[in-house]
Amino acid sequence: MKRINFWIISVALIFMMGCSQQAVSSQLVEKQEFVTENFTTHGGENIAEVRVGWEAYGELNKAKDNVILITHFFSGNSHAAGRYSESDPFPGYWDAIIGPGKAIDTNKFYVISSDTLVNQEPNNPKVITTGPASINPATGKPYGLDFPVVTIRDFVNVQKLLLESLGIERLHAVVGASMGSLQALEWSVAYPDKVDRMISVIGMAESDPWTIATLQQWANPIMADPNWNNGNYYGAQPPVAGVTQAVMSITLQAQHPLIFNQLNGASSASEKEPMHNIRNNFVVIDQLNAAAAARATYADANHILYLVRANQLFMAGHGESLEAGLSRVKAATLFLPAANDLLLQPYLAQRAYNILKQQGNATEYEEIQGPWGHLDGVFTISSKAEKIREFLQ
Amino acid sequence: MKRINFWIISVALIFMMGCSQQAVSSQLVEKQEFVTENFTTHGGENIAEVRVGWEAYGELNKAKDNVILITHFFSGNSHAAGRYSESDPFPGYWDAIIGPGKAIDTNKFYVISSDTLVNQEPNNPKVITTGPASINPATGKPYGLDFPVVTIRDFVNVQKLLLESLGIERLHAVVGASMGSLQALEWSVAYPDKVDRMISVIGMAESDPWTIATLQQWANPIMADPNWNNGNYYGAQPPVAGVTQAVMSITLQAQHPLIFNQLNGASSASEKEPMHNIRNNFVVIDQLNAAAAARATYADANHILYLVRANQLFMAGHGESLEAGLSRVKAATLFLPAANDLLLQPYLAQRAYNILKQQGNATEYEEIQGPWGHLDGVFTISSKAEKIREFLQ
Repeated sequence: MKRINFWIISVALIFMMGCSQQAVSSQLVEKQEFVTENFTTHGGENIAEVRVGWEAYGELNKAKDNVILITHFFSGNSHAAGRYSESDPFPGYWDAIIGPGKAIDTNKFYVISSDTLVNQEPNNPKVITTGPASINPATGKPYGLDFPVVTIRDFVNVQKLLLESLGIERLHAVVGASMGSLQALEWSVAYPDKVDRMISVIGMAESDPWTIATLQQWANPIMADPNWNNGNYYGAQPPVAGVTQAVMSITLQAQHPLIFNQLNGASSASEKEPMHNIRNNFVVIDQLNAAAAARATYADANHILYLVRANQLFMAGHGESLEAGLSRVKAATLFLPAANDLLLQPYLAQRAYNILKQQGNATEYEEIQGPWGHLDGVFTISSKAEKIREFLQ
Repeated sequence: MKRINFWIISVALIFMMGCSQQAVSSQLVEKQEFVTENFTTHGGENIAEVRVGWEAYGELNKAKDNVILITHFFSGNSHAAGRYSESDPFPGYWDAIIGPGKAIDTNKFYVISSDTLVNQEPNNPKVITTGPASINPATGKPYGLDFPVVTIRDFVNVQKLLLESLGIERLHAVVGASMGSLQALEWSVAYPDKVDRMISVIGMAESDPWTIATLQQWANPIMADPNWNNGNYYGAQPPVAGVTQAVMSITLQAQHPLIFNQLNGASSASEKEPMHNIRNNFVVIDQLNAAAAARATYADANHILYLVRANQLFMAGHGESLEAGLSRVKAATLFLPAANDLLLQPYLAQRAYNILKQQGNATEYEEIQGPWGHLDGVFTISSKAEKIREFLQ
């Protein structure tokens, strides 16, 4: 029983790592690298060299005007669809809606996706990113906390340079889930003349104090781990315990009790071991720990801190007010929050939609119904496939 | 601005520590001590001596049949109403509904409330409790993790001994919020012939895996603090950082964004300091930290771990199933969850209500509407004052 349950939660976590529920046959994709130099951050700092990974599905047309950019979520990466090899057990996380004939139809569109700056998993062989774990050319050592604070605008600006390197000047659409939705919205605010359509899935337009504080709960266990050592752990024992706790919190908060209780039905208040001794854990805690520890092997503690900060600092446009930022949007916009989301609750997307509507934007709002909570933006996205297809026409 | 906000959140936290919103004139109350020896826990262990504090409001009648027991929440204590001295800035946490002429009318009822075992704040001069910080008579040193795991049933059994010491054999009602609701329900299951009415406010009947995992997030930072030292920190540096993080999580999860964003409106995604340097915090984080650190001075780390465990282990009746447990209830029951509660969500109380209704119990269910979330069970309880008054007739 314990083993079956562990298997279920492991599969669920593998899904979260960037795969899809549907075992459809997927196209093969190749991870590529983009390099740019002397990148100036939104905060005015210089990064000597930025490297990020990217991949694409479908064909770029001659006019280079059939491009859809997919922007990834907090613990995700560029792998939105397809498989890297025939033997890959799972395709990219949105394979259910990206592919030939699918909602985001690669027979029509050139769909491109890149790893962000400060990606959570610099140690994942399939991720290419630049962040505190990267070598600072000025010292020959990892940046650590000397890496500048980066924002969602910086993620967007790296993507813009990548697209320009391919001769792409305009996006048919930009689509992202969770932190990806922040990038999608920021694209339409920062470069209103370059974006025709924007889809925000399980997203927000501005971090409010509750969200800032909730995200901080992911940073705190890392900074509390003595091995973190103010960010100077490269070449030493990294803060694995802190990262594991952070990943555990992320996993838990991304799920609604409806699904969490189903996946962890082997655990209950009546377990004998935790009754016998305060040192014993409930089955669900051991399983969450084990899954998070496995997940933590690819993660970098400082990268998680920088990702948390980028999300906390997000206000679309990074200007005087959210209203001022959103007033720049020319793209048609579609907001798809998840009704049961306990992390980025629907009121956040609703607020952006209300402002845009009042400003006369062609904006739409629909809630995803599902048992997953925040993760409905990944696992229940098929329920909005037709809506997405229609919006992209 | 920062100072005003800090003041607001401090007051909010003081409320959470066991006070009420209403600055009504309150009766003076006196904290008393109850001692019992050779207490056998539900798990079959022996505690040589149990001491708990208690207090009462109103007069016990001759028949001793006008008794209402109030059971306290996780971070609370016996101080449900009144003031200890004229100069006390705040009365007990439910003073809005307990007092002469109020919903729980002390002109009619003898209202009694006690500190639980393993109370969060053994270092609070107004709390008397027995737990891991207490001296183990077998060793002359604090129990630490040698203290047996205790359950909500044990909290109830200590209260039963206290009541018996006063000659009280039957309860007109037992009423509790949050962890207090667990005790209230357990009273009606364990001693169905002694309880006539039960009110569960922001409560549940059984910890499900999601709740077990969520509560564990309060234990994890304590166990991750090197000063915790497997529970052996008495006479040494206690794990203050871990306790502070635990208290911060409790504070945050007990509030809905509706109120949290109001109280912390001075903080925003546009703050300059967190943009300049990754080491700088948002205002809201500094304020949460400061308030939690202040709160942590009275708390004991091991006591929090034991409280978490008691809540995680809760299934009404501690028997074969929740249905079997609830089938023993003879009391009329009233469930008052908070509509916006993100911690013990309304589905938990709804489940207990549904089972009791199906079993033919005289049960009622109403949701508290308010901006606080879980804390609506304390701060918005006045909105259910008439319902409570009527139910207690």
